[in-house]
Amino acid sequence: MSRKIITLGEVMMRLTTPGNERFLQADQFNIVYGGAEANVSVSLAQWGLHAAHVTAFPKNDLGNAAARYLRQTGVDISHVSFNEGRMGLYFLENGAMQRSSKIIYDRFDSAFANFDGEAIDWDNIFEDADWFHWTGITPALSEKAAAMTLKALQVASSKGLMISGDINYRRNLWQYGKGPLDVMPELIQYTNVIVAGLVDFENCMDIKADDYEEACLKTRKNFPNIKYITTTERNSISASHNQLQGWLWNGRELLTSKTYDMTHIVDRVGGGDAYMAGLIYGLLFYSDQKALEFAVAASVLKHSISGDANLVSLEEVESLVKGEHVGKLLR
Amino acid sequence: MSRKIITLGEVMMRLTTPGNERFLQADQFNIVYGGAEANVSVSLAQWGLHAAHVTAFPKNDLGNAAARYLRQTGVDISHVSFNEGRMGLYFLENGAMQRSSKIIYDRFDSAFANFDGEAIDWDNIFEDADWFHWTGITPALSEKAAAMTLKALQVASSKGLMISGDINYRRNLWQYGKGPLDVMPELIQYTNVIVAGLVDFENCMDIKADDYEEACLKTRKNFPNIKYITTTERNSISASHNQLQGWLWNGRELLTSKTYDMTHIVDRVGGGDAYMAGLIYGLLFYSDQKALEFAVAASVLKHSISGDANLVSLEEVESLVKGEHVGKLLR
Amino acid sequence: MSRKIITLGEVMMRLTTPGNERFLQADQFNIVYGGAEANVSVSLAQWGLHAAHVTAFPKNDLGNAAARYLRQTGVDISHVSFNEGRMGLYFLENGAMQRSSKIIYDRFDSAFANFDGEAIDWDNIFEDADWFHWTGITPALSEKAAAMTLKALQVASSKGLMISGDINYRRNLWQYGKGPLDVMPELIQYTNVIVAGLVDFENCMDIKADDYEEACLKTRKNFPNIKYITTTERNSISASHNQLQGWLWNGRELLTSKTYDMTHIVDRVGGGDAYMAGLIYGLLFYSDQKALEFAVAASVLKHSISGDANLVSLEEVESLVKGEHVGKLLR
Amino acid sequence: MSRKIITLGEVMMRLTTPGNERFLQADQFNIVYGGAEANVSVSLAQWGLHAAHVTAFPKNDLGNAAARYLRQTGVDISHVSFNEGRMGLYFLENGAMQRSSKIIYDRFDSAFANFDGEAIDWDNIFEDADWFHWTGITPALSEKAAAMTLKALQVASSKGLMISGDINYRRNLWQYGKGPLDVMPELIQYTNVIVAGLVDFENCMDIKADDYEEACLKTRKNFPNIKYITTTERNSISASHNQLQGWLWNGRELLTSKTYDMTHIVDRVGGGDAYMAGLIYGLLFYSDQKALEFAVAASVLKHSISGDANLVSLEEVESLVKGEHVGKLLR
Amino acid sequence: MSRKIITLGEVMMRLTTPGNERFLQADQFNIVYGGAEANVSVSLAQWGLHAAHVTAFPKNDLGNAAARYLRQTGVDISHVSFNEGRMGLYFLENGAMQRSSKIIYDRFDSAFANFDGEAIDWDNIFEDADWFHWTGITPALSEKAAAMTLKALQVASSKGLMISGDINYRRNLWQYGKGPLDVMPELIQYTNVIVAGLVDFENCMDIKADDYEEACLKTRKNFPNIKYITTTERNSISASHNQLQGWLWNGRELLTSKTYDMTHIVDRVGGGDAYMAGLIYGLLFYSDQKALEFAVAASVLKHSISGDANLVSLEEVESLVKGEHVGKLLR
Amino acid sequence: MSRKIITLGEVMMRLTTPGNERFLQADQFNIVYGGAEANVSVSLAQWGLHAAHVTAFPKNDLGNAAARYLRQTGVDISHVSFNEGRMGLYFLENGAMQRSSKIIYDRFDSAFANFDGEAIDWDNIFEDADWFHWTGITPALSEKAAAMTLKALQVASSKGLMISGDINYRRNLWQYGKGPLDVMPELIQYTNVIVAGLVDFENCMDIKADDYEEACLKTRKNFPNIKYITTTERNSISASHNQLQGWLWNGRELLTSKTYDMTHIVDRVGGGDAYMAGLIYGLLFYSDQKALEFAVAASVLKHSISGDANLVSLEEVESLVKGEHVGKLLR
Repeated sequence: MSRKIITLGEVMMRLTTPGNERFLQADQFNIVYGGAEANVSVSLAQWGLHAAHVTAFPKNDLGNAAARYLRQTGVDISHVSFNEGRMGLYFLENGAMQRSSKIIYDRFDSAFANFDGEAIDWDNIFEDADWFHWTGITPALSEKAAAMTLKALQVASSKGLMISGDINYRRNLWQYGKGPLDVMPELIQYTNVIVAGLVDFENCMDIKADDYEEACLKTRKNFPNIKYITTTERNSISASHNQLQGWLWNGRELLTSKTYDMTHIVDRVGGGDAYMAGLIYGLLFYSDQKALEFAVAASVLKHSISGDANLVSLEEVESLVKGEHVGKLLR
Repeated sequence: MSRKIITLGEVMMRLTTPGNERFLQADQFNIVYGGAEANVSVSLAQWGLHAAHVTAFPKNDLGNAAARYLRQTGVDISHVSFNEGRMGLYFLENGAMQRSSKIIYDRFDSAFANFDGEAIDWDNIFEDADWFHWTGITPALSEKAAAMTLKALQVASSKGLMISGDINYRRNLWQYGKGPLDVMPELIQYTNVIVAGLVDFENCMDIKADDYEEACLKTRKNFPNIKYITTTERNSISASHNQLQGWLWNGRELLTSKTYDMTHIVDRVGGGDAYMAGLIYGLLFYSDQKALEFAVAASVLKHSISGDANLVSLEEVESLVKGEHVGKLLR
Repeated sequence: MSRKIITLGEVMMRLTTPGNERFLQADQFNIVYGGAEANVSVSLAQWGLHAAHVTAFPKNDLGNAAARYLRQTGVDISHVSFNEGRMGLYFLENGAMQRSSKIIYDRFDSAFANFDGEAIDWDNIFEDADWFHWTGITPALSEKAAAMTLKALQVASSKGLMISGDINYRRNLWQYGKGPLDVMPELIQYTNVIVAGLVDFENCMDIKADDYEEACLKTRKNFPNIKYITTTERNSISASHNQLQGWLWNGRELLTSKTYDMTHIVDRVGGGDAYMAGLIYGLLFYSDQKALEFAVAASVLKHSISGDANLVSLEEVESLVKGEHVGKLLR
Repeated sequence: MSRKIITLGEVMMRLTTPGNERFLQADQFNIVYGGAEANVSVSLAQWGLHAAHVTAFPKNDLGNAAARYLRQTGVDISHVSFNEGRMGLYFLENGAMQRSSKIIYDRFDSAFANFDGEAIDWDNIFEDADWFHWTGITPALSEKAAAMTLKALQVASSKGLMISGDINYRRNLWQYGKGPLDVMPELIQYTNVIVAGLVDFENCMDIKADDYEEACLKTRKNFPNIKYITTTERNSISASHNQLQGWLWNGRELLTSKTYDMTHIVDRVGGGDAYMAGLIYGLLFYSDQKALEFAVAASVLKHSISGDANLVSLEEVESLVKGEHVGKLLR
Repeated sequence: MSRKIITLGEVMMRLTTPGNERFLQADQFNIVYGGAEANVSVSLAQWGLHAAHVTAFPKNDLGNAAARYLRQTGVDISHVSFNEGRMGLYFLENGAMQRSSKIIYDRFDSAFANFDGEAIDWDNIFEDADWFHWTGITPALSEKAAAMTLKALQVASSKGLMISGDINYRRNLWQYGKGPLDVMPELIQYTNVIVAGLVDFENCMDIKADDYEEACLKTRKNFPNIKYITTTERNSISASHNQLQGWLWNGRELLTSKTYDMTHIVDRVGGGDAYMAGLIYGLLFYSDQKALEFAVAASVLKHSISGDANLVSLEEVESLVKGEHVGKLLR
Repeated sequence: MSRKIITLGEVMMRLTTPGNERFLQADQFNIVYGGAEANVSVSLAQWGLHAAHVTAFPKNDLGNAAARYLRQTGVDISHVSFNEGRMGLYFLENGAMQRSSKIIYDRFDSAFANFDGEAIDWDNIFEDADWFHWTGITPALSEKAAAMTLKALQVASSKGLMISGDINYRRNLWQYGKGPLDVMPELIQYTNVIVAGLVDFENCMDIKADDYEEACLKTRKNFPNIKYITTTERNSISASHNQLQGWLWNGRELLTSKTYDMTHIVDRVGGGDAYMAGLIYGLLFYSDQKALEFAVAASVLKHSISGDANLVSLEEVESLVKGEHVGKLLR
């Protein structure tokens, strides 16, 4: 039951201080690589689907190292470009207790942000593909990246792929002269499944609403291709302890998942991407409610794993959905 | 008030991924050594008793390293053999939150499993000894290991030692052609103290019961040498948070201990062996109820310590039993 | 709004076992440096004040390393002496769950304990200074250290500095022939703000009381210079989970702070010093109640940070006081 | 100018003590994966060729981790099987100075040794392939592995691939009842390029000779398909300092390479495999003499890199052949 | 005998792979900070002089960490600015044997490169200063950085400071539209001591010469302020083994130092800066020949120390100059 | 062919900076334990003899950890005392190239130095023993330690043990009021084998001589019990490269060993103790010349091993004596 999923977006080198060390203390960084869209491909490849990621790396040993990392996960990297430019970076300090986690981005002028996607053969890439996933980070990076996203969406749409988009509004991006309302609506037009919170509706779709269901209804009116709208409700008791629930609006009703207590968080970065991957997997193979439960369980497990990537098996997610073997010692 | 305790069983090299890393992520393993029976000796040596462990290691530098490790703990290794064969291994991935811990065993054809115990001079080993402890893992490994266990039990019994056995049924073992019901009842016959849960009663003694006390009564009927039956009740809220209580049936009544909340588990492997060691110590020196409380407190403290070995002092266990200094900063 | 604060006391090399390892397991120590008084200066320098620490280090590479460490934090080390003698040390094992943390001190005969402070030019040091902070550890170390403390207090007092003292009674110190009641009252006489718990009142001021407010009133009667008396109430549920509240008696009433739940403690050493620093900062710039809230919030954040030093910014403490961004992922 | 190379053989988890630690000291192992044949594929993939490795891994997380590792290098793993059985292991202690390096193998009964290669579709695997490489380790492991090697050779030969074999006689293998002279001559019959030293000629081909050229001539007489015979001459001054030269007999003459002084060896394991990969690359694209120089230079660089894999670029090998930039700081 | 030295230049975060790992292997980076000019200040502060470094860091935790690092070394950071912008980075892979070390720079658009130095109060900074040191890296970074260098030189010169400049031509820099011949001659005009090799003479001063002495004579003709010209002759036998000699032309003759054999290089980055610092120290306090010997010995010792900074004492350098205690065990 | 050897002396915790880090850089120390005399016992236990070490540790977890360490090596610790007092420490920084290694001792007032050896039952300890080994470090520590050494020597001598002493003059010790000439001659009187260099003869025996043989002859005249005098000649080319030869005067002639080139030294501490252990082993079982060769080879191998302990097997030493397998890869 394999399917082919295409994701597009920047992959950054992530430099994390060890354990709970602050930036001011660290004399080492742990290196992994991640990006909101690639993280989705990594999950899906881990679960046995054919996931291919489209991106650009710098043409040097750092780019080669990033490509090796991605290849290791089983993601198809045959559509990765190697260009002039620098590696996008982000620095992460993991919080603890009441102390927040912190990210410092250093991604401007990266090989991806400056990548001229004109030469990408989207027709070929989307051949035999079932799903295309993008996020609002890419069009926020540069004019070129926004244009590339639009072109990808147009081809994917014309070929009948299912299209998901994680709106993911980030105020610190969008530095190239356009704002989200200039760019995002056109992109959302092609999209069937969106991840959005109330702040995303307002900033990227100019939709204000008092509650989530109202926002969904208004959104569907403006963007008739949308079939699903989804979000996670996260209650941050502390950096070490969160609660998580998923919401999925399927055009008819707002489904909610079980709420999980995450009491000893190892690494919350990538938790939303794990949810997105779970939802794609679920919508491909399961009913709406089960898809939602699968997505939230996948996201919960991600919080127990260091790094952006959700290195859990299908069986592990399904066990958690069923409440089996939770926290046991499996021999 | 020293006593001499003999334990018999395989000691494996344990290869653990660092921190919370998954097998898929790790590029290092931490090395310790452990085995259900040796772990009991380590606790008892730590508490000042003369504990000698009988086992076989491969005749190479890995076996030498294992022997050094065991010698370090104060366990008497003068009855350890060095043979042809490989080191038994187990790989451990520590879970976190809802993600379970995982063990992959790689112990078949080890120097211990292939050890021909015929040459062991049990009369000499049990000279001046007070207690012999075995587990159901050894007879599950190989025909030779089962025969060696039986012989040890016969000599220990004839010399009047107190004998304890941890039934510890594991489905993945028992690959050599015999099943637990072929082998275990004869071994249990010689045993005075057994650790068993309901699944052990059924699989190793063919005893089915609706509750624990009923199982104890039925067991005593079949195995009249049994004086104590014991188990721990573990509630696994998550891999990081368990609750633990001990039960001890002493032929008259089912005693229960205080229940402990273990909210930040460091390493739960060896928790049962720490309980067993605590119970042996307790039954040697304390009343039944105090023995049980000591055993559970010892097991709780083990969960705060990395590795199989319970590196806590008598004073620390006793403080926890009394509820003193719990979690303080001791200067 | 900068102020100048002077602190006096020993800085020790702290040798901590990694992670949750016990002394019996560790084959590495992590090195940081700390001392009750220097920790206060470190916090205040971190928050932008001019904090100078007076101490003595051995005249060798260990002393140089300690000086480098202190200089790194921004503390003014121009009044540090380099003498013959050894580096004071302390060894720390971090507890977990019900297992306590342990400190082994090895500070006798250190360069600081043997330091003859006669040559210190206190007039110069206190020039332009606003505040002097000392603790009961220094006079407990040696006759010389007690004399140095007294002299510092006399000069500071004559120059009109605000003076704070953390009574910090430790039974294991006081080995040089005098007891706290021989020495401390004279020192407290010069002090305006004291940190003291009921045990300190009794041991260092010979004041017995049934409750804290009564102790405060009695203390003020004996020591009319005292303006503030303060303490933290710590509830140690386990080594990993404490609750913390601050109390501040300002001569009129006993103020209490919000109580914080610290559920995943990283390192509690220095928590009291962080509180003291917070209180000094608060009393310099805020109202009494806000000073107290600031102090407790600073102390709470310290528990999330490895090492003696409280590496948090003013903004982070203030956010916690306001309950903003607690445990979020800040991008 | 891409070519397709197929390699066949076991990939083991390699557990190396850190730095120069002895097995008796280590409490950690570094994990990489390697095998004589896969190491060749890794080099060739690194240099841009299509290299596919045929092997079997255990169907568990250790096998998955091994597959991830191999995939990372760019080797095509689409012909890897996942079976019941254990992971083959080897333990490595790096020597220093006069102290030798030591390997302890633990590879018996591995998933590969027990792999029934009957189902392998060699016709498909060798489709479009240019070269097949095998070593004498595989037929030494088990009857099944020897049969699989023979079958692979027959199909490769029938399809006209160039075939290379590294004789690699190891006395400790060959435990399944047959000896090298029973098995190896038939396999060598199909081979065009062999790596062999004088001890290999004698033990695997029953050819005794006083010098290398004589051995080559005798070998060609018995094995007319052989076009090239090659070896490296290694002078082990110490574990840290070796000298290396390559010899290549091409049917007409015995070519010799430049001799390199390797004065600060980081890791010599895989040095021979790096040579073999260099030779395959060289024989595909260069003259005989240049192929030999390329192979030796590749092997020399391998000695500067930790792990089995030779992570050097084509440009780096070629620079060393030309003597450019040797040991410089490249900015 | 203290003197005050001012240095100007970018300080980058240096991210080094551990041990001999390649970029392709590393999953950690070690963090230190360095820059050609700051490295000079660090050496001089280490030797007891007052060394102040002028630079700009980003106004975030990475900039704060860099400042802490620099402050730790004893360098006066009171003239450091904190601006918008990113941290300049460089990635280092240490070579071994014949494998070269590699640096990947990622310093464009850094807080320093974009720093508008207009506001720098050079009159104040150079008050009481004895020496100003700059390098050709700064004017190569940006128009603003070149202008800032020029202004600093003008003020320093007008105040009669001794001025040294390390020409340090790097082709990969100079991306902002001007070339070295447009900029460097004007800067060199103010300089009294230059470090230059033949390639620097040609690229930055348009001086071609057949030998070093001829180049010195021609340079002096064009730049009459120059009193000393110096360089190091490095013979790179391998990445692990270099030989080093210093040359110093003092207007009268070309002095040469002892040649050192550096057989086990730990880290060669910063070796030239250590030489420069040694030369400044030497020219301040010693004769020309002794200054040169001191500079080379300082540089040699730097190669034994990890990181950019030369953490050796005056006594250690002087011992090496005298050939005392070389490589002994000092108790 | 087992023999029983008794050694007496302090065992210190050794805190070593990782790799080549300087004290000024390190934020971790590696922990091992060692002492000149215990190191001899460790070697001999490693080689299968019964070696018992007499010492005193502090009665705390650091002392327990030290005892565990020693027990691990197989040394008999049944004569170890646990007293009040602190752990003796030494800090080690490993040099590289021309940079020397450095040791900072912190051993005054240790549990051993203050140990009142009156209660030691030397008659019992020396029962069945063949050899007693002491060094000049012990009598240099304190009056008590000197008295204990004398008593041990008297009993050992009266029981006819072979007695060896490593004179090991260290100027920094001898702080308790007596000098070596007050104490050492009486102790040497009982000794049969001494390790001494020319400086030792002069400082501890008041013997001046122009060459080694003359010193030996004079020594024998004064100390008629002496049968062997020995030393190692070390040529320190750099901290990374030494040459080593052994000299043994047996009353008739001065034997010399092969000279070894140690080009990549890992850790030279304990090299002399490894030599001493080798000589004891050799004089027990071999001819004089072979004993000397064995001792030097043992010492050479020690230099390749991190820590004080010489973790090499008899076979490894003997192979080096024969020149077999030197620096090979042993599978």
